[in-house]
Amino acid sequence: MSYYEKHVFFCCNQRDGGRTCCNDKGASAMRDYAKSKVKALGLSGPGKVRINQAGCLDRCEEGPCVVVYPEGVWYTYVDQADIDEIIEEHLSHGRVVERLKM
Amino acid sequence: MSYYEKHVFFCCNQRDGGRTCCNDKGASAMRDYAKSKVKALGLSGPGKVRINQAGCLDRCEEGPCVVVYPEGVWYTYVDQADIDEIIEEHLSHGRVVERLKM
Repeated sequence: MSYYEKHVFFCCNQRDGGRTCCNDKGASAMRDYAKSKVKALGLSGPGKVRINQAGCLDRCEEGPCVVVYPEGVWYTYVDQADIDEIIEEHLSHGRVVERLKM
Repeated sequence: MSYYEKHVFFCCNQRDGGRTCCNDKGASAMRDYAKSKVKALGLSGPGKVRINQAGCLDRCEEGPCVVVYPEGVWYTYVDQADIDEIIEEHLSHGRVVERLKM
């Protein structure tokens, strides 16, 4: 069994020179929001959920992106409502959110 | 199938105040080394290997630590020889390096 049941990585890459990147689309703020919400719901910790920032996941053009392991499911998101849905459906209940999949 | 066959995250957290942390043990340099080596070996890219830095994986006391997904195998390491072994055994050939497992 994984140390974390769901290990979530937000691409928080900041690219220079005007190239598209996840952080220009609010990635760091969304990662902070997800981390706080997961903690508030009592879902965080070993054997449960961990929310992490990560360097460039190299899918910025399709992003902002986030990946959930060990499933290896990739999502994009627009706003907090999307993050809420990923937390409620996938992280809480293990149901993949098809509409947000990359 | 995962977008990356092996997705590797190095905890590169820098803690303040003297608390133990992976970055004090050379994590960022080791991540750079791993990234360069994987690229040089032609292992990097979609369907293959991705090396990423990550924020705190919250196992700093046991670290420095790195996790390989989708397997969810955690390793610690001391030097470049350990990283070489993880790359050669696990990332190239899918064989878990038992002696470095956390």
